[in-house]
Amino acid sequence: KQIILLPGDGIGREIIHSAKVVLNAIASEYNHEFTFHQHAIGGDAIDNYGVPLPEDTVKACHNADAVLLGAVGGPKWDQVPANIRPEKGLLGIRKELGLFANLRPVKGFKSLLHASPLKQEIIEGSDILIIRELTGGLYFGQPSERRNNGNSVVDTLSYTREEMERIIDKGFQSARIRKKHLTSVDKANVLESSRLWREVVEEKAKDYPDVTVEHLLVDAAAMKLITNPSQFDVIVTENLFGDILSDEASVLTGSLGMLPSASIRTDGVGLYEPVHGSAPDIAGKGIANPLGMILSAALMLRHSFGLDEEASDIEKAVNECLEQGYHTADLRIAGGTQVGTEEMTNLVLENLT
Amino acid sequence: KQIILLPGDGIGREIIHSAKVVLNAIASEYNHEFTFHQHAIGGDAIDNYGVPLPEDTVKACHNADAVLLGAVGGPKWDQVPANIRPEKGLLGIRKELGLFANLRPVKGFKSLLHASPLKQEIIEGSDILIIRELTGGLYFGQPSERRNNGNSVVDTLSYTREEMERIIDKGFQSARIRKKHLTSVDKANVLESSRLWREVVEEKAKDYPDVTVEHLLVDAAAMKLITNPSQFDVIVTENLFGDILSDEASVLTGSLGMLPSASIRTDGVGLYEPVHGSAPDIAGKGIANPLGMILSAALMLRHSFGLDEEASDIEKAVNECLEQGYHTADLRIAGGTQVGTEEMTNLVLENLT
Ligand SMILES: CC(C)[C@H](C(=O)O)[C@@H](O)C(=O)O
Ligand SMILES: CC(C)[C@H](C(=O)O)[C@@H](O)C(=O)O
Repeated sequence: KQIILLPGDGIGREIIHSAKVVLNAIASEYNHEFTFHQHAIGGDAIDNYGVPLPEDTVKACHNADAVLLGAVGGPKWDQVPANIRPEKGLLGIRKELGLFANLRPVKGFKSLLHASPLKQEIIEGSDILIIRELTGGLYFGQPSERRNNGNSVVDTLSYTREEMERIIDKGFQSARIRKKHLTSVDKANVLESSRLWREVVEEKAKDYPDVTVEHLLVDAAAMKLITNPSQFDVIVTENLFGDILSDEASVLTGSLGMLPSASIRTDGVGLYEPVHGSAPDIAGKGIANPLGMILSAALMLRHSFGLDEEASDIEKAVNECLEQGYHTADLRIAGGTQVGTEEMTNLVLENLT
Repeated sequence: KQIILLPGDGIGREIIHSAKVVLNAIASEYNHEFTFHQHAIGGDAIDNYGVPLPEDTVKACHNADAVLLGAVGGPKWDQVPANIRPEKGLLGIRKELGLFANLRPVKGFKSLLHASPLKQEIIEGSDILIIRELTGGLYFGQPSERRNNGNSVVDTLSYTREEMERIIDKGFQSARIRKKHLTSVDKANVLESSRLWREVVEEKAKDYPDVTVEHLLVDAAAMKLITNPSQFDVIVTENLFGDILSDEASVLTGSLGMLPSASIRTDGVGLYEPVHGSAPDIAGKGIANPLGMILSAALMLRHSFGLDEEASDIEKAVNECLEQGYHTADLRIAGGTQVGTEEMTNLVLENLT
């Protein structure tokens, strides 16, 4: 299996190394062959190649079975022109590879739940999978431009029915292998695109009679994630709503640094990255939490390579480390031991075997 | 002063009556003359006139000094065509009157803060004013339509620089009379409209050197509202972001039923409504919480009539009621007394004088 590593910026380089080490351990244990090639993206690519997504990187990703991404962006590139910002690298690779489905599981770890901003009784039992459409909507719709000598501006929220169908299908399929409850989020009382979305959900619902569907307006969803997170199973929504809601949901468990994400397409090719950012303030210090990245690698094994057992091994090992009280500087465990990036990675390895 | 009452649907009728009673008490105490005229909006208007916003209602509002609105919508009208849904009445009256600035104060009451889904130490001290642009963006942008035989769809996010300027000015002015901190929320790493927004904020900042400005991406804002709500003072943002963030913020204090809102324009004319919905399940039972509506009337006195002292009187009276342990069925106060709509209204009157 060909894996492309895109460390990107800030702590990206450190944590992607951790993921590689863990994957190598899995490879030798299960007799798989993983080959790794590293390429530039984001600010790192701007510095070295003048663009956030070099042709070379795109080409390599097109030939790969999966991509692991660290993080992109940082204040260093705040002043670069809009068209070559680090984030353009991320948006570009998603679009280039057609990674239309962003999976954002939100589930707390028992030993970390005390750090949730929510009261225990509210966050307890929450296990949400947010599925965000990733290659359509306001992110890519045209026109997106200034008008009247810069005195007005438009962006365009555009979707085809087909784009809606495939992500909504993904939502139903995911619900089917979980708790069979799908919450579709839209703004159908205002947006025409949301009314089409709701129609497509209703149509698709007939193909999944075993799944219960609920429609929720995006503003109501933003409320319910806080007041009643454990009521959700799978949430499916369009790109921008998904961006906002998945980030909102990511802080509920109190351990953002632990959360992985997957961006995939129908044939299984995918890009995997932790939810947290590039954390330039702690980059190079050896204290970054590698677990979100390592758990992203586990998602890669499961979703791109179909290696479910191997993925679970990693997830169990990570949980073991926490149960043993080990944590990085971004987390606290009462009576636990704070460790750095490398030590945490080694602890995962130890718990793997 | 001419006040138009738009009870709307569900509990709207009961709570708007409470507001009127309280305003009459203020009028006789301070020797003001308030006249009230009641008109139809929302589902109520659909049932009686076939449209959610009758011409008659629009005309009356145009001639008024301020409008009080109860709530619109309910499952009864879920099946009516999109163009005459109850919400269209609300969107229509905002647009008709040019009410471009939606003010959503979020501040907990000491005696109710225990009901917050957030841990005490996180919600404590929060006092946020969210200012949402209300007549532009995706809500009203054209085209908003199906294309290719219904196989694709677009909505348009459109703003003029002027529309941005006036709401951003409102943000700075509001920050100036509060804690002098303005958080501007956008998605400038993706949207052209957000990049213009950010430019306008930077330009306007020069006119308000006493106010500190911070830019926050909407996804980051959705996180920070939960992890660090007390860090905010005034938030200013465009229509849809404001819809989502203000609803998210509204549940943080644990007493949504208490929150008022104001939708105003430059000359002071405004529409005032509680943040909560029409609650059809409890309509007509006499148990609805009238305090969000009563506090909305207080905002009317302050923002539309410049009657600051009178507004504060109402706010103090409401707080008194809670301190005395009185609460409606949607709230809990340990050792308190549960009362109905009418009794709560009378308690406010008693505490007024
Ligand atoms: C960096 C940014 C363009 C991106 C997005 O909005 O999609 C990020 O917030 C994310 O969610 O991965
Ligand atoms: C009813 C709906 C159209 C409205 C909106 O989205 O503006 C509501 O959610 C609000 O915030 O007042």
